[in-house]
Amino acid sequence: MAQKPSIPKGTRDFSQAETARRNYIFDTCREVFRLYGYAPIETPAMENLSTLMGKYGEEGDKLLFRIQNSGEQASAPPEKGLRYDLTVPFARYVVQHQSEIAFPFKRYQIQPVWRADRPQKGRYREFYQCDVDVIGSRSLVNELELIQIVEAVFGRLGVGVTLKLNNRKILAGIAETIGHPDKLVDITVAIDKLEKIGMEAVKAQLAEKGIETAAIDKLEPILALEGSNAEKLNKLAAAIVGSETGLLGIEEMRFIFDMVHNLEIPLDIELDLSLARGLNYYTGTIFEVKATGWQIGSICGGGRYDDLTGIFGMPGVSGVGISFGADRIYDVMAGLGLFPEEATVGTRLLLVNFGGAEELQSLRLLSALRAKGVPAEIYPDAAKMKKQMEWANRRAVPFVAIVGEEELAKGVATVKNMLSGEQKQIAFDRLHEIFI
Amino acid sequence: MAQKPSIPKGTRDFSQAETARRNYIFDTCREVFRLYGYAPIETPAMENLSTLMGKYGEEGDKLLFRIQNSGEQASAPPEKGLRYDLTVPFARYVVQHQSEIAFPFKRYQIQPVWRADRPQKGRYREFYQCDVDVIGSRSLVNELELIQIVEAVFGRLGVGVTLKLNNRKILAGIAETIGHPDKLVDITVAIDKLEKIGMEAVKAQLAEKGIETAAIDKLEPILALEGSNAEKLNKLAAAIVGSETGLLGIEEMRFIFDMVHNLEIPLDIELDLSLARGLNYYTGTIFEVKATGWQIGSICGGGRYDDLTGIFGMPGVSGVGISFGADRIYDVMAGLGLFPEEATVGTRLLLVNFGGAEELQSLRLLSALRAKGVPAEIYPDAAKMKKQMEWANRRAVPFVAIVGEEELAKGVATVKNMLSGEQKQIAFDRLHEIFI
Repeated sequence: MAQKPSIPKGTRDFSQAETARRNYIFDTCREVFRLYGYAPIETPAMENLSTLMGKYGEEGDKLLFRIQNSGEQASAPPEKGLRYDLTVPFARYVVQHQSEIAFPFKRYQIQPVWRADRPQKGRYREFYQCDVDVIGSRSLVNELELIQIVEAVFGRLGVGVTLKLNNRKILAGIAETIGHPDKLVDITVAIDKLEKIGMEAVKAQLAEKGIETAAIDKLEPILALEGSNAEKLNKLAAAIVGSETGLLGIEEMRFIFDMVHNLEIPLDIELDLSLARGLNYYTGTIFEVKATGWQIGSICGGGRYDDLTGIFGMPGVSGVGISFGADRIYDVMAGLGLFPEEATVGTRLLLVNFGGAEELQSLRLLSALRAKGVPAEIYPDAAKMKKQMEWANRRAVPFVAIVGEEELAKGVATVKNMLSGEQKQIAFDRLHEIFI
Repeated sequence: MAQKPSIPKGTRDFSQAETARRNYIFDTCREVFRLYGYAPIETPAMENLSTLMGKYGEEGDKLLFRIQNSGEQASAPPEKGLRYDLTVPFARYVVQHQSEIAFPFKRYQIQPVWRADRPQKGRYREFYQCDVDVIGSRSLVNELELIQIVEAVFGRLGVGVTLKLNNRKILAGIAETIGHPDKLVDITVAIDKLEKIGMEAVKAQLAEKGIETAAIDKLEPILALEGSNAEKLNKLAAAIVGSETGLLGIEEMRFIFDMVHNLEIPLDIELDLSLARGLNYYTGTIFEVKATGWQIGSICGGGRYDDLTGIFGMPGVSGVGISFGADRIYDVMAGLGLFPEEATVGTRLLLVNFGGAEELQSLRLLSALRAKGVPAEIYPDAAKMKKQMEWANRRAVPFVAIVGEEELAKGVATVKNMLSGEQKQIAFDRLHEIFI
C-alpha cells in the first residue's frame, strides 16, 4: 500500500468549511472594492526572474521560488520564479500595459504569492495577498477612499479595528529638524519603545545610535506628544516649523483627518509616529490596521509611494495602496467567532432518497427549489435512513425532507428542522416557502 | 532606462475587462455548483513531486514544472512541482483527509494549473481548471446531477450546447462481442471516422489494426447505428446481448436518458459511441460538451471513474466528475458576443471633481450611493473637465454627474447619460433612484 500522501511543508489544503470562510472575507473585500470603482486584474504565478530579482533586497532574492527550466534547458540557471508579492507584478503590469490603461488606474488583485520562508506558526510558503491600489494620481482623495474602504470592509466583517496613520514626510521633517535626516528608522523605533521602556532609556538608546544630546533634547517633546490627533498635529507643526517637507506632511494629515471628520466615517483613527513600515518605499501617508480585542500583528496596511514603476523604466508615477492580510483576518474572525452562519452553510435542504417513484418526485422538487435559488440536494443512493441523516448532520444541512410512499400519495414532504427537531408536512408546491 | 518588462511565454496577464468576463464564467459555475450541494476546496499550487510523478504518463512527467529547492539544498534534485491538473491533487486530498470527509464527498475546485507545454494558439502554460466531482457513491443520480449542472451553467451563460454521452462499459461490451477486448480505442476511432471517410475505408483501417474480417462484419451494424438515442440503445443491446458488462452499460445509459426525459431537462443529449476521452481512466459514463454555432473543441467533459484514489492507497472508491474549460468557454462567448454588459460594467456613476466644498458634497453623495449598493466614484483630482470626461469614457462609466457651484446651491446634481447624451438635474437625495 502506498504511503499516505502529504503536501510540501509550509503549504496548506483548505477544506470546504475553511474555503467558505476565506471566500467570505475575499467576497466582502471584492464587493467593497467594486463600490469604490476598483476592478480586478490577474497576473501569472510565474514571472521572469529578471522582473523579481533585486526588488525585495538580498534576503528577498533568497526567498524566491525558482522554477527549473523544462526540456533541454533543464540544467541551465532558472529563468522564472513564483511571484513573491503582488506589488512588483503590479508595477510590471502597469509599465507593460501603460498604453492600454486609463490613468488614474484603480485596480485590486487577490492572488496567492510564494516565499521560501522557514515555515512556522502563522507563516506559510503559499498565501493570498489582497491588494488594492490606485496609481497615477497624487490626490489625497485616494487616501481618503482607502480609509473608507478599510472602514467598509471591517465594518461588514464585524471586526473592530483601529487605523493608525503616519506620514513619511512628517518623519522626514522631524529628522531634518534635529539635524539627522538619516536617522528616520531610529526615531520611529524610539517612539515605538517609549511606552515600554520610558523616556530615559529611549534617550540612552538614541545616544547609542550616534545622536548627540542637543538633537535628543529637540526630539524629546516630539516623542512625548499627547492629546487628540489635531492637538498632536498642532504641536508637531510648531516643533518642525523649519522643515518644508515636514509641514507638507502635516498639511496632508490635516486634510485626511478633516475629511474623515466631515464625512463622519465611523472609524477609530490615530496618528502614530512610530509607524515605520516600508520606509524606504513609502513617500507620504502610511497606514496600518490593528484588530481590537484580539492579539495579532497588523491585519491591513499600506501607504503612498512615488516611484513604484521607476524600477521598470516608468518614473514619477505616484500611487497609494493597501493590502488586506487574509490569513490574519481569518484568525481574528475565527478567534472572536465572527463568521456568520451563512458564510458556511451550503445546502439548505436534503431530500432523503427512497429510490423509484419517490426519487423521481424528489428530483422534481429539487429542480423547483433550485430554480428559486435554494441550494438543495438528494442523497444519491437509497441508503439506510440513518446513514442519510448522518450525512446531513455531518454537513450541517439545516433541513431534511422525506418524500416516502405516504407523502407521495398526499403530495406533501415531511420536513424536519435539524436544529429544533421540529417536523411538519408541507405541500410540494409550497416547499420553497420555508426559505423565503 | 530599463527594458520594457515582459512575462514568461505561455503565460498571460488578464486586464480588468478580461478578468471581469472570466469571473462572470466562474461565478456562474460557482452559483450553479452551490445549488447542487457542491462546495469548494483549495489545494496548494505546489505538490510533492512524488504525488505528481507517474500520474500523467511519461509525456506528462516531462511537462511538470519543477521547483528548485531553496537554500543549501538548491543543487539537490527538485522535490516539488506545480500542479498539472486538479484531479491528482483531489485524489491526494481525499486520501489525506479521508477521516474528516463525509462521503459521498461533493467538491468543486477552481484553480490554475501549469504545464510546460510548447506554447501555441489557445494553449497556455498556466490556465484555470474548473472541476466538479462527487466521490464515494456509485449512484447514477450523480451523473444525472452533473447533466443538470451542464444544462444550468450553459443555460445561464447563454451558450448553446450538445452533450455527448458514451459509456465505457458499452464500449467494452462491443469489443468483447467482436472478440477483441483490447481494441477499444481502435473501435472508437473507427466510429469517429465513419462519417468522414465512409464504411469501406473504416473497415480497411480496422483490418490494418489486426482485426479479422469476421469481427469487422460483426462490428459493421454497430458502427452504422442510426435513429434516436433510445433506438440506438435498443439496437446496441441486441448486438451485444452476450456481454454482461455491455448490457450493464446499456442499462446505465437508459436510466440516464429516461431521467433526462422525465425531468424534462432542456438539453440536447446524444449517444456518441466515438467518445473516447480518458479511456484508461473512465469506467462508466463519459461526457463531452460541444458548443453549437462556434467551431472549437469540447468545452466541458468528464466521466465516471472507479479507482481515482487507488494510486494513493485508497482503492475501490467510485466517483464521477466533469471539468469546464474556461478558456474555450471564454472564446465561444467572446466570439458569439454572449457576455452581458453587466459582466463588465463596474462603476455606474462618476462625479466630476471641482475640489473644495463641491468635492466634499460629492463625497457625501458617493457615501449615500455606495450605502445603497451603487458602485460610484469621483475623479480624484480637480482636473480639467475634458480630462475627467475622457476618463469616464475610457472606462465605460454609463453616468457622469456634476456638482458645481450652481448645483451645490440648488441641492441638485446634473447627471449625463453617457450613452444617450441626455442630461437632467436630480435632487441629491434622489440620485440613487436612477439605478433602481
